[in-house]
Amino acid sequence: MKPVIAVTMGDPAGVGPEILIKALNDARVKKAASVMAVGDLGVLREAAKKLRLKGPSDEQVISVTNLDLKKLKIGKPSKLSGEASVAFIEEALYMTAIGDADAFVTCPISKEAVKKAGFTFPGHTEFIAHLTGTEDFVMMLGGKDLKVVLVTIHESLKKVPSLITTESVLKTISITDKAFKNDFGLKKPRIAVCGLNPHAGEAGMFGDEDKNIIEPAVRKARKAGIDAVGPLPSDTVFYRAVRKKEFDVVVAMYHDQGLGPLKLMHFDDGVNATLGLPVIRTSVDHGTAFDIAWQGKASHESLVAAIEMAAQMAVRRAKA
Amino acid sequence: MKPVIAVTMGDPAGVGPEILIKALNDARVKKAASVMAVGDLGVLREAAKKLRLKGPSDEQVISVTNLDLKKLKIGKPSKLSGEASVAFIEEALYMTAIGDADAFVTCPISKEAVKKAGFTFPGHTEFIAHLTGTEDFVMMLGGKDLKVVLVTIHESLKKVPSLITTESVLKTISITDKAFKNDFGLKKPRIAVCGLNPHAGEAGMFGDEDKNIIEPAVRKARKAGIDAVGPLPSDTVFYRAVRKKEFDVVVAMYHDQGLGPLKLMHFDDGVNATLGLPVIRTSVDHGTAFDIAWQGKASHESLVAAIEMAAQMAVRRAKA
Repeated sequence: MKPVIAVTMGDPAGVGPEILIKALNDARVKKAASVMAVGDLGVLREAAKKLRLKGPSDEQVISVTNLDLKKLKIGKPSKLSGEASVAFIEEALYMTAIGDADAFVTCPISKEAVKKAGFTFPGHTEFIAHLTGTEDFVMMLGGKDLKVVLVTIHESLKKVPSLITTESVLKTISITDKAFKNDFGLKKPRIAVCGLNPHAGEAGMFGDEDKNIIEPAVRKARKAGIDAVGPLPSDTVFYRAVRKKEFDVVVAMYHDQGLGPLKLMHFDDGVNATLGLPVIRTSVDHGTAFDIAWQGKASHESLVAAIEMAAQMAVRRAKA
Repeated sequence: MKPVIAVTMGDPAGVGPEILIKALNDARVKKAASVMAVGDLGVLREAAKKLRLKGPSDEQVISVTNLDLKKLKIGKPSKLSGEASVAFIEEALYMTAIGDADAFVTCPISKEAVKKAGFTFPGHTEFIAHLTGTEDFVMMLGGKDLKVVLVTIHESLKKVPSLITTESVLKTISITDKAFKNDFGLKKPRIAVCGLNPHAGEAGMFGDEDKNIIEPAVRKARKAGIDAVGPLPSDTVFYRAVRKKEFDVVVAMYHDQGLGPLKLMHFDDGVNATLGLPVIRTSVDHGTAFDIAWQGKASHESLVAAIEMAAQMAVRRAKA
């Protein structure tokens, strides 16, 4: 049995329709999952026609909207495209919650368009967490060779040290451990925890947060039976995870600490997954790319990887 | 004409003697340079004997000390090993300053041993800068695929934002530009400048240092004819430098921002170079590794790369 994966079309005016059509026609996707596109049938067929690609069949699409193609401005975020984006997410989440889909994958939406439609959430993740009543979730970005989980995400560097608490680090480690057990099929995930400072503080010479805040979090996690190690110097931890295969996942304290190494490894095929949700959800690791929308230029590699990862997670969770 | 490269032996009780002997016997080193080992002939011959390697000839070594092998404790930093370490650096620098060598390369020293010998400088770089009366220098780490220069180095993350000034960023860019022109043979080095915050601040949403501090530094550099670009989001800049070859060097704002990606690319063959000195100096990118000293386990790849880089820089500076 192949898992059923609901894939939202994302913002109709962005690259979403194009990469979704390409994914529907991709042999790797067909092999990994039964994909249900959640979007707008008219838009998908129009995009396919324009790009000379095979359009979707009626059975492949849950058509949530019936957008007026004359009103849709390709490459421009609008109230219309924002409203549709949100409707696709709600439908895909609903399908997954009631079991019509085993997991769902989201194509990129536009913050600006969603705002024009009257929604104030900063992104997919927060919206889905809100809809499912989830408070404790973490963002993972990753691919085959490297998976990174972030303790803080979109925060100025100045704010980061005050947001690193024993509680926030421990929570991130615990959610990661649980998700890697249930959804990635690992019995005892090997979790590397980065230090905050260079050389993880080098015995307090370059800051004391590593010793006073992160070390206790790792100690508590280990007491709870989690195979967490750290705080480790973050200049070498990615080498150890990728080349030496010492760890299954790296917990980074902040955005650029984790994502520079990650995008060096998985720029094109990186997947964004939200861990800690009651449903399985992955996402492409790029934006709407309005500047190249509907031009045949967008790579669908990240979407293929996101569908494959969601399918694998669904299979493993079913077994767990 | 092959450039003459003086290579210090580093701390006699560390891996220095071993990797230096291995490098002297390495065909790549012989091809790139005429190497003068600056150290202790007795120690080098003893290490070679112990490791069953071909020992150095009299002509290959400037023997600065004549250490009592019975007093030297392998694997242990001491006053004796610290004093010798410093003497090797002074001699190699002197040889380079008077033109007996075209560049010099340093093997690892021990902060602890050097302290026992009564010296207070934090590392090679600061000591050499002091001896040459250099105030403006920057540290570069790099290999064939990626070169990274740091604006701040060993500072707690909390302190970093206050150390990023338009002046410090501009100075780093300027020294980098000059060195890449003179020593790396580039007519117009393409310099990527990282932002401090995620997405380089995303128009001020995650911090204003990118716009208010780094952007003016890049603007001033460009006015001075330097091909600097930024502030760029640091999660994708390393991908762009390594995979897309868009930049020759990346200026990072702090240690872990630059060195996580760097060590992912160049863990074994990374080279540390000090830019802005009147002499050319590179170094291995690892420490004394006392725990594996004189056991035949140490890799000399970083030393080979450091000698090759110093040789290339010397050839180019001679032509410039």
